[in-house]
Amino acid sequence: MSHPSAAEAIAARAATIITRCRELARITDVPGETTRHFLSPATRDAHTLITGWMRQAGLQTRVDDVGNLRATRLSALSNAHTFVLFSHIDTVTNAGAFDGPLGVLLGLAAIEQLGATPLPFHIELIAFSEEEGMRFGFPFLSSLAATGKLTTDHLARTDSDGISVAEAITSFGLDPARIPTTCPLAPNTFAAVEVHIEQGPVLEKSDSALAVVSAIVGQSRLELTFQGQANHAGTTPMSLRSDALAAAAQWIVDVEHYAANYTQLVATVGRITTLPGAINIVPGTVHATLDVRHPKDESRHAAIAHLLAKAEAAGALRGVQVHAVVQSEQHAVPMDRNLTHHLHQAAARAGYDAEPIFSGAGHDAMILAAAVPTTMLFLRTPGGLSHHPDENVRPEDVEAALTTVLNLLLHLHPHPGTNQQR
Amino acid sequence: MSHPSAAEAIAARAATIITRCRELARITDVPGETTRHFLSPATRDAHTLITGWMRQAGLQTRVDDVGNLRATRLSALSNAHTFVLFSHIDTVTNAGAFDGPLGVLLGLAAIEQLGATPLPFHIELIAFSEEEGMRFGFPFLSSLAATGKLTTDHLARTDSDGISVAEAITSFGLDPARIPTTCPLAPNTFAAVEVHIEQGPVLEKSDSALAVVSAIVGQSRLELTFQGQANHAGTTPMSLRSDALAAAAQWIVDVEHYAANYTQLVATVGRITTLPGAINIVPGTVHATLDVRHPKDESRHAAIAHLLAKAEAAGALRGVQVHAVVQSEQHAVPMDRNLTHHLHQAAARAGYDAEPIFSGAGHDAMILAAAVPTTMLFLRTPGGLSHHPDENVRPEDVEAALTTVLNLLLHLHPHPGTNQQR
Repeated sequence: MSHPSAAEAIAARAATIITRCRELARITDVPGETTRHFLSPATRDAHTLITGWMRQAGLQTRVDDVGNLRATRLSALSNAHTFVLFSHIDTVTNAGAFDGPLGVLLGLAAIEQLGATPLPFHIELIAFSEEEGMRFGFPFLSSLAATGKLTTDHLARTDSDGISVAEAITSFGLDPARIPTTCPLAPNTFAAVEVHIEQGPVLEKSDSALAVVSAIVGQSRLELTFQGQANHAGTTPMSLRSDALAAAAQWIVDVEHYAANYTQLVATVGRITTLPGAINIVPGTVHATLDVRHPKDESRHAAIAHLLAKAEAAGALRGVQVHAVVQSEQHAVPMDRNLTHHLHQAAARAGYDAEPIFSGAGHDAMILAAAVPTTMLFLRTPGGLSHHPDENVRPEDVEAALTTVLNLLLHLHPHPGTNQQR
Repeated sequence: MSHPSAAEAIAARAATIITRCRELARITDVPGETTRHFLSPATRDAHTLITGWMRQAGLQTRVDDVGNLRATRLSALSNAHTFVLFSHIDTVTNAGAFDGPLGVLLGLAAIEQLGATPLPFHIELIAFSEEEGMRFGFPFLSSLAATGKLTTDHLARTDSDGISVAEAITSFGLDPARIPTTCPLAPNTFAAVEVHIEQGPVLEKSDSALAVVSAIVGQSRLELTFQGQANHAGTTPMSLRSDALAAAAQWIVDVEHYAANYTQLVATVGRITTLPGAINIVPGTVHATLDVRHPKDESRHAAIAHLLAKAEAAGALRGVQVHAVVQSEQHAVPMDRNLTHHLHQAAARAGYDAEPIFSGAGHDAMILAAAVPTTMLFLRTPGGLSHHPDENVRPEDVEAALTTVLNLLLHLHPHPGTNQQR
């Protein structure tokens, strides 16, 4: 019996990645679904399962003091620098199998495929413990710890049972006091790559397997209040109304229209409530949310200013006052240009046209980018569906991603011109 | 000391009407507000207070078996027919002093002012016990009883404590079995007039004290569902969305625009909800209510057909399905043309230009109109405010209404050409 061809080996490994993701998805805190929140009992079982696979691959493993599972493939080279492959293994409630775990298990498969191939750098594979922010209402706690940005405020946050982050860490058998010692990335880390599903419909629409991420969008969240006058729906003629909902509705149409005509902008009104909210009363007050995202901060700010002016104008036509409050702002994070270019080339060598895309969702890569040259590789997401049990990947796209990561590892040299930027 | 002039007497009686309304408003089931629901303890106290005033005026009084307080001023004429003055004394929760009681106490004041003046008809003054529909979630129970339209289904309705209408009647010391005997209007009733506050801003806007009601609008209540696709607000480009809220918003603007340009039409979206209703998720489903009113049924139906087509069109642009359900329909009720004309003339003789208006709200007059020639007189409502503790009337408008009712009584003859219509 002959050895399998390279293509057959990759296909087999891609199948294993998917099988492992599905096996991991059965490890859950809520029977019948896939739910693994930060430092939960299922997280420990997930660590046990993945640690077994990592050790089979000959890797050294450890769990740092914020609960990240980390494995290292050492280079034979003295003073080798470190390349990081990462994603997360916590999930949203009732999640799919791939958002997070795919990046970890694809990284592991790449290392397995490398076998004994010598590389001039160490590889650290990190399974972050908290990306989704479900348990403490705050995402990225574990990548903040890895980049030295976790604060005592973060540690004092409490979950719905009143348990603090610090207490949860202790209960898991870890020590929050050791976070500064055990969590940071290796100081000689020269690049970090996260493989993740797109979670959107763009790649499917363009019939592409992969994309490289050029930036993670900045995001602003606002709440607008439209204050008109509640009135009897029968006795108040149209001309004598100050209908807060009519004003808000005109504005929502304006939001949609403006964003549709502005490249790379997305703007969403996701929630609206009417007061008093009776079928026979003209709405006096409307609360509406606004989520605006763009890969450039200045463009996002310009869009918000324009949209608030539109809200004012829609209100002014009807005697409706508009008040807006910014609830949160997150600046855009460009991915490392050089590393993204190398990743694009690695895909191209394998025959994939991984065009640049921006990520409309936040990722740990945003946090790591503040510390080390970082980029992301996106895989097509069937139906754009994520955060849902039906979340899926195509086997051929997993092969493409695995081949791309292998190509990157085999052609990358420490200090590929990226560190100079920092 | 000379007798007061007629104008002084009317002004004094108008002041008494307002004083009595305010005294009655202190009789409440909920201390600190004005709340008198159907057949409540406060209703009994209200009956006691008003009965005292009625008897001082020399009237015979009784409470019929649905709890209506009724007083009669008999004509000396043998075989005299009956003229009905009516309104209601139940209130919404946390009501004002005038919605309902004003019509009863203005009727009483008119009778007091008549003194011994002979009239060729009896006058029955009715204080209906249930117009607002608070207790059993259904209005007009007491006027339905007076017109022979109360059904066993009505009697079986239950309040929030599980008490049926029939049980509530019995608990009040009345007998539901006697409703067909004690409740009907006198068979020779030839006309019925309800005096009521407008509850809207139209008279104030036109600087008028009074209006005669030409019709009570028909009303349709619908619920629309806009079914799009929930998607991630960050990863779903504008062009790949099926945003249910954007479709609903365009439709709400259409509703407002159409009604504003269509005489006598009012159309209101009073409540809207988004699902899943998260700031960062494109709304997949929107539920919205629609309340449409017009004094002509065919115009109302045409408006609804047009507005549903607009909803379909707004949805079609976005891949959003629209589904509409009619929750209730109430046909328009024209007031008796002849009686309304007489009422208009009665106002004109007193120097008031009581223009025809349509009532955008429902009233007992709607129910009585099915049995006897009926109309309504509206008084200006400061700020258009009703169903609120700050509800008010102007003394000079009460004088105008009282003078108008007196003019009508003094010039009306039984069978003023109105009965022939029926």
